[in-house]
Amino acid sequence: MQVAVVTFDGFNELDSFIASALINRCRKDGLEAFITTPTPVVTSMNGVEVSGQRPMDFIPEADVVLIGSGVKTRDVIADDRLLAMLPLDPARQLIGSQCSGALVLARLGLLGGMPVCADMTSRPFVEDFGVTVLDAPFHAEGNIASAGGCLASQYLAAWVMTRVLGEDAARGSIGYAAPVGERHETVERVMSAVRAGEPALR
Amino acid sequence: MQVAVVTFDGFNELDSFIASALINRCRKDGLEAFITTPTPVVTSMNGVEVSGQRPMDFIPEADVVLIGSGVKTRDVIADDRLLAMLPLDPARQLIGSQCSGALVLARLGLLGGMPVCADMTSRPFVEDFGVTVLDAPFHAEGNIASAGGCLASQYLAAWVMTRVLGEDAARGSIGYAAPVGERHETVERVMSAVRAGEPALR
Repeated sequence: MQVAVVTFDGFNELDSFIASALINRCRKDGLEAFITTPTPVVTSMNGVEVSGQRPMDFIPEADVVLIGSGVKTRDVIADDRLLAMLPLDPARQLIGSQCSGALVLARLGLLGGMPVCADMTSRPFVEDFGVTVLDAPFHAEGNIASAGGCLASQYLAAWVMTRVLGEDAARGSIGYAAPVGERHETVERVMSAVRAGEPALR
Repeated sequence: MQVAVVTFDGFNELDSFIASALINRCRKDGLEAFITTPTPVVTSMNGVEVSGQRPMDFIPEADVVLIGSGVKTRDVIADDRLLAMLPLDPARQLIGSQCSGALVLARLGLLGGMPVCADMTSRPFVEDFGVTVLDAPFHAEGNIASAGGCLASQYLAAWVMTRVLGEDAARGSIGYAAPVGERHETVERVMSAVRAGEPALR
């Protein structure tokens, strides 16, 4: 099972790398994440140049697509060429957004009436699409999830691992990454946030 | 004030990017972090190629040096050429290690009798240097700090921001990055962990 972590120029490192690194703890279980970019190299909001691991052509074959966040997402949703590279299909893919990535889901018309989570800066722009933004870090309905606040990327990753491999895999990855001595509380906090935002997992 | 986030081949993305991205929220206050690498490009443990923002020559001019973690740190400490690129000076620099980065501090003889934090995998190799590894996520004495467990990189970043700019700056950065709706509890948890590991800040 393959995860595309879609990463645009101006991306926030926390958003793309927390999700991808946590998910890649499950590579031994057959779940693997790839930084997926529209150009061979993208530059983060802090000036870090990263080579994409997969081109956008990879998206149709991915089982999970996570839309990362960054300082240029409003440019992304104004760019029809970029949007055409995102043929997302929630009927057969798990789809998630992190922070301003919710703007992409809104612009693509994938949300129907469902509310989303997004960061405070992106919130008014998401609301401009008539989408409700929750005062919560994580929300999922069916195959679509969203997370708001950079560190909520842990919740998005845990949702992906839980949906694809089951809760034990998610607990294992989060537990491995937890601060030493805080494994139990970290895992419980993350899994509670996922359950709170995803009624189907309660 | 400049922070070198030293990042070797095989690096763990969580360790280098959580610290650098959180610290870079303080750029407006004059504190800035740079991914600092021994080669123009380094490849993460998950195969992500990242261009260094600064070469190792930058280390002597950095005010803060954080040694990241990865799957090849034992090769780093066996490589005299790489070690020679790390002329760390705790008399005038803040120095921190993340997970296996503690091995580098031990190998460089910087720890004296102080204990450190490190991840469970690195622990026995750190202990081989006669260094005590704590069952805790964060510890600091004077100008040297260490964190264990990938997500404890938040604590290392908060320590740097607190020591350089004061607690308000650290609270601002962590609060910005916190999951939506969890700002207060996230900031308090991180600052408590830093205080618990750094008696001088209590």
